[in-house]
Amino acid sequence: EFDVAWDASASDKGGWSSFMAKEVSEQPDAVANTLRGRIVDGVVVIPELAEFGDEALARIRRIVIIACGTAAYAGQVAKYAIEKWAKVPVDVELSHEFRYRDPVIENDTLVVSISQSGETMDTLMAVKYAREAGAVAISICNTQGATIPRESNAVIYTHAGPEVAVASTKAFVAQIAALYLFALHLARVRGTLGSAELLEHTAELQAIPEKIATTLLQGDAVRQLATWMTDSRAVLFLGRHVGFPIALEGALKLKELAYIHAEGFAAGELKHGPIALIEPGQPVFVVVPSPRGSAHLHPKVVSNIQEIRARGARVIVIAEQGDAAVLPFADTVIHIPLAAPLFEPLLAVVPLQLFAMELATAKGLDVDQPRNLAKSVTVE
Amino acid sequence: EFDVAWDASASDKGGWSSFMAKEVSEQPDAVANTLRGRIVDGVVVIPELAEFGDEALARIRRIVIIACGTAAYAGQVAKYAIEKWAKVPVDVELSHEFRYRDPVIENDTLVVSISQSGETMDTLMAVKYAREAGAVAISICNTQGATIPRESNAVIYTHAGPEVAVASTKAFVAQIAALYLFALHLARVRGTLGSAELLEHTAELQAIPEKIATTLLQGDAVRQLATWMTDSRAVLFLGRHVGFPIALEGALKLKELAYIHAEGFAAGELKHGPIALIEPGQPVFVVVPSPRGSAHLHPKVVSNIQEIRARGARVIVIAEQGDAAVLPFADTVIHIPLAAPLFEPLLAVVPLQLFAMELATAKGLDVDQPRNLAKSVTVE
Repeated sequence: EFDVAWDASASDKGGWSSFMAKEVSEQPDAVANTLRGRIVDGVVVIPELAEFGDEALARIRRIVIIACGTAAYAGQVAKYAIEKWAKVPVDVELSHEFRYRDPVIENDTLVVSISQSGETMDTLMAVKYAREAGAVAISICNTQGATIPRESNAVIYTHAGPEVAVASTKAFVAQIAALYLFALHLARVRGTLGSAELLEHTAELQAIPEKIATTLLQGDAVRQLATWMTDSRAVLFLGRHVGFPIALEGALKLKELAYIHAEGFAAGELKHGPIALIEPGQPVFVVVPSPRGSAHLHPKVVSNIQEIRARGARVIVIAEQGDAAVLPFADTVIHIPLAAPLFEPLLAVVPLQLFAMELATAKGLDVDQPRNLAKSVTVE
Repeated sequence: EFDVAWDASASDKGGWSSFMAKEVSEQPDAVANTLRGRIVDGVVVIPELAEFGDEALARIRRIVIIACGTAAYAGQVAKYAIEKWAKVPVDVELSHEFRYRDPVIENDTLVVSISQSGETMDTLMAVKYAREAGAVAISICNTQGATIPRESNAVIYTHAGPEVAVASTKAFVAQIAALYLFALHLARVRGTLGSAELLEHTAELQAIPEKIATTLLQGDAVRQLATWMTDSRAVLFLGRHVGFPIALEGALKLKELAYIHAEGFAAGELKHGPIALIEPGQPVFVVVPSPRGSAHLHPKVVSNIQEIRARGARVIVIAEQGDAAVLPFADTVIHIPLAAPLFEPLLAVVPLQLFAMELATAKGLDVDQPRNLAKSVTVE
């Protein structure tokens, strides 16, 4: 089941303690290389989509994103951006669920698949199913010439470079970058954003690599936190809006690498059940949206933090640099640079990746090859 | 935050040890009363939807189901049925996520909200938001005259009777029953199912109350299992297809009532991360689809069970009576009566409710009023 193609130089750890440590550090380049050549004078240009023609993209009525694992969380992040910018409804579905029910596919449905390897069997079969049902299929893929791109009408390659560690990191941020390029292209074609907005969002995207590099400077602080927390038996992750899939991804990384029960929640679900789990000392990571964004989200997340804090939770927040309102309620704060709300996931995920990696390392585990897992799930 | 209206007789435990025990036992009636008067000569009739006219329902292009907590899982179950029977795409979204992003709502979008109390604040605000954006809104509600029905264009009441225990049980099965009635009505109006199929599914629905009653006979076996498992620190739940939201619901019940870290997964996600959690002795509940259903699902779930068993998991399966293929791989089997695949959730959820209740009881916890939780989340 373990089957990755790489060349000798790319498979070198280059001085890093693990492939994962190397790949986490390569995330600025993964995003920059995915954007390279696709933004011309501030405008997104995706030659790979030229064959569709703008008209075909303009008449799409619905997008179904199909993926598994971490790639599905990239899809969930993109749903928020695509619906907001391009005004097309987006349904994100797990490939193995999609293919075994009778999903509705119409000829104005666009299927977007996401797979780092391009060989994920369930995703491949879901793409084939959708195309037979009449859908047009675009794939987001990190591996040139892989099977899923060949079975799709078009492919937007991510250029994250070979990802060797089983737990996906740089491929994830590159997937979000590619999906955002696609969303901005779609918004331009459909006329749902004006040029000023398009330029603004494109500039935000171009600023991400440097901001990820800044976020990586939190590595030492995160390592120290992880070292203190090696005895944790269960860790919860909360987020709202685009922070929700990041909470899910943070929990998945901790499960994969450190074998700790970890669950991510939409913070709004707390009162519908999960808050019963909160008891003194329970560690909870909270992805805090920028106070400069929506007037609603930041105070709601702060209120969620107060609720769990009142019940004894140990709260670790990922918050924007300068967010003073959250400080009195956090046991630990990890800062990320300022970014527009939809771009925060590309930064907030980084400390969560580092945390899982460092905690697993502190437990003496192999972070590149966690137990029971293969890099590409090429079987069903 | 605790605010439930009930009359004196309905609030009596009637000899049961808790309201929850009483309400779990009332599930056959909750479904039967929700169906009563709405099936005439084998055909679904929903007078509450008369004002729409068949034409309005026929031209719907997309359904968005909005709910929180357990009600959202009822929506996820219904997604499978609505897409299969009525061929309308369905997106299930948490109310608190829906209202704070910019969701796409078109005038051929139908919003279906689900709330037992009809007062869930986030769901109410999401319904208002959707109606202002031009959507038509139907609510599924268990409380006559509540606010959400009043803010909707139409309401399909569930007739589960007052639900007093904080953890929802009989309201959940009644919600699925109401949603299935709606799905069958929609399929008839849209001409996506023939009369033979409609009659067959309607008959399946009518047979559910008696089958739930049969499932409840597993109570003693489940109690014994729960008593053995009071020391569990984390429990996993797996399912595919309609068994996936049931796995989520089983995990939520255990979190709410027994304060145990419990997470539900789509079984197809195992290899994408969660299988790293499996170590000797890890208890895993698996909702097994009928071997008489899809040619794909049953063998895939059996294969998932073999994978976790090989790594030492302690496997507890919920399987159809007579499913011999799964027996060699299960440590414990809880049987449910035969039902068509889409109807299994109404049965499979019952032992999971009982398990959470009995385990909490064995731990000496208050199953009617778990810590930190309110019955209706009428604040944001």
